Amino acid sequence: MYTQQELTQIVNDALLKVRMNPEVYHLYEPIRYAIKNGGKRIRPVLMLMAYNLFREDIHRIMDNALAMEVYHNFTLLHDDVMDKAELRRGMPCVHVKWDENTAILSGDTMLALAYRLMTENDAFFDDESCARAHYKAQSAALKTFNEATIGVCEGQQFDMDFETMDSVTEEQYMEMIRLKTSLLLSCSLKIGAQLAEAGSDDAELLYLFGEKVGLAFQLQDDLLDVYGDPKVFGKNIGGDIVSNKKTFMLIKALELADENNKAQLLEWILKREFDRQEKIAAVTYIYNVCGIRSICEQKIEALFAEGMAALDRLCVEDKKKEPLRDFALKLMNRKS
Amino acid sequence: MYTQQELTQIVNDALLKVRMNPEVYHLYEPIRYAIKNGGKRIRPVLMLMAYNLFREDIHRIMDNALAMEVYHNFTLLHDDVMDKAELRRGMPCVHVKWDENTAILSGDTMLALAYRLMTENDAFFDDESCARAHYKAQSAALKTFNEATIGVCEGQQFDMDFETMDSVTEEQYMEMIRLKTSLLLSCSLKIGAQLAEAGSDDAELLYLFGEKVGLAFQLQDDLLDVYGDPKVFGKNIGGDIVSNKKTFMLIKALELADENNKAQLLEWILKREFDRQEKIAAVTYIYNVCGIRSICEQKIEALFAEGMAALDRLCVEDKKKEPLRDFALKLMNRKS
Repeated sequence: MYTQQELTQIVNDALLKVRMNPEVYHLYEPIRYAIKNGGKRIRPVLMLMAYNLFREDIHRIMDNALAMEVYHNFTLLHDDVMDKAELRRGMPCVHVKWDENTAILSGDTMLALAYRLMTENDAFFDDESCARAHYKAQSAALKTFNEATIGVCEGQQFDMDFETMDSVTEEQYMEMIRLKTSLLLSCSLKIGAQLAEAGSDDAELLYLFGEKVGLAFQLQDDLLDVYGDPKVFGKNIGGDIVSNKKTFMLIKALELADENNKAQLLEWILKREFDRQEKIAAVTYIYNVCGIRSICEQKIEALFAEGMAALDRLCVEDKKKEPLRDFALKLMNRKS
Repeated sequence: MYTQQELTQIVNDALLKVRMNPEVYHLYEPIRYAIKNGGKRIRPVLMLMAYNLFREDIHRIMDNALAMEVYHNFTLLHDDVMDKAELRRGMPCVHVKWDENTAILSGDTMLALAYRLMTENDAFFDDESCARAHYKAQSAALKTFNEATIGVCEGQQFDMDFETMDSVTEEQYMEMIRLKTSLLLSCSLKIGAQLAEAGSDDAELLYLFGEKVGLAFQLQDDLLDVYGDPKVFGKNIGGDIVSNKKTFMLIKALELADENNKAQLLEWILKREFDRQEKIAAVTYIYNVCGIRSICEQKIEALFAEGMAALDRLCVEDKKKEPLRDFALKLMNRKS
């Protein structure tokens, strides 16, 4: 059984060896830059952990794990272009360090590379056995990968749509973050199970675990944007409030606020010119009055518990689940 | 045996039925627009023709054929963003009709959709037989598709690199157009053969046929940009000359011109301000002096003949090759 630390190291080493044509330097240099630029490698590590629940030979699916990481980094690269972001993990974004066309084309190539990694895993495709179960496992994993790659694009579209919509429902918001954040986690886990030829019940439970923990994680991220400690959170507090991002908290506040508070909230949303700190303080005050913090915390708690319950139900000896349990706790910054 | 016209109609009908989530309207509307906007469906038709050399049940690989067409349209969509083009086949480009972010995200989704079509062809994946040959055919076809998707991006990068390079060799130019234009044709043909479980010699001959005819076609396009009839060509004559595009003809002229003509050519290339028609006339004059037209025509002839020779060598009865032969002739606007 591998620890998270070991798996992260293995993934980082393998990422350096992804095959890229050295003759097209200008295409692959930004790709290497984007891939090298850190991150926690959450998705490939989750895939390997899920596989490791059932089988020991994790290197057999290394290309599939890398596919997920390359795909994830592709989405970051193109999202940064669309958001006109400046920095990614403290480094200039690809479209800033090079230019927009380079970012578009390098991103496209990363998506194709991700699929090459997913579909040309020689450990599978050169396997002389070609057993029926084995073959089915691969085609099932590919379907899950397609669900992820297309779903994340759909989530990004919803996110962009929400910016210009007058109102967004709680259900719509949850669906958007499911697609944009949870789906890659749940699909990584499910693919790991599918490639290990685990039962479909277990694959679905792992999917559920990833989905619920992913939702809890995203809601916690929203919460910390308002109530987090700036020193720990790493981003400026109140960014979502300033940009009127229609988060779970804003949606709930608009739903629960009395007439006076709701009017004030809408006024702040419509204001074109304002003092940043003043707006953050005023909106946070309304959140406090409506008890949004505790509503959000309860929701996070419930989602996290649902995720853990799915893990509990998995037909695998309990000790083997430890890495995934620890992973989820660490993701949420919890001790237990 | 199907005719080109029949296949084009079948592809057009099938394209309208590609599965798209109706709940993400803003994502799929531009995709439908881009796909619907005509074109000759060259790539899927070639794939079906190649398959049809060996098997009659062309509908079995319809999703794979559509994958190639969706991929091709994705490249056009993103190329238009990068080139800041206004029109595509007489209609506003997606980034003009909507905006750049829509074009980036819709394009990304098209690439993922292309892979879904390529990898989730239920005619294959639900096949209960799972024979070894059958399984190998699919994984081989997927590798060819990956070669195409990544190669086209590399070709686009070379094309962008050439814009800022002082000199480009004939070899570099031919490699760029091989990747950017030929590769999708040759891979479409090869995939058709692979999915039909044809012998690998035949698959390679079809690849070669597509590669050589594709190169001949691109060189002819370059030639027509200088010597074409504006009424027939459909684009303005001299566009490549005005923009200093390092085509086969310019590369050859710089290689063959005497000192005086070479100096004049370089002067025109460096000029920032000039009369468009004057530049076109002056450069065309130098091409004429150097005999570039006939050099280019000979090259086209040789490549086309190589392509046709590959088709001749194919181990299939001659009558079955007619649709591909006609297709190549029509592509080059030839009678025989």
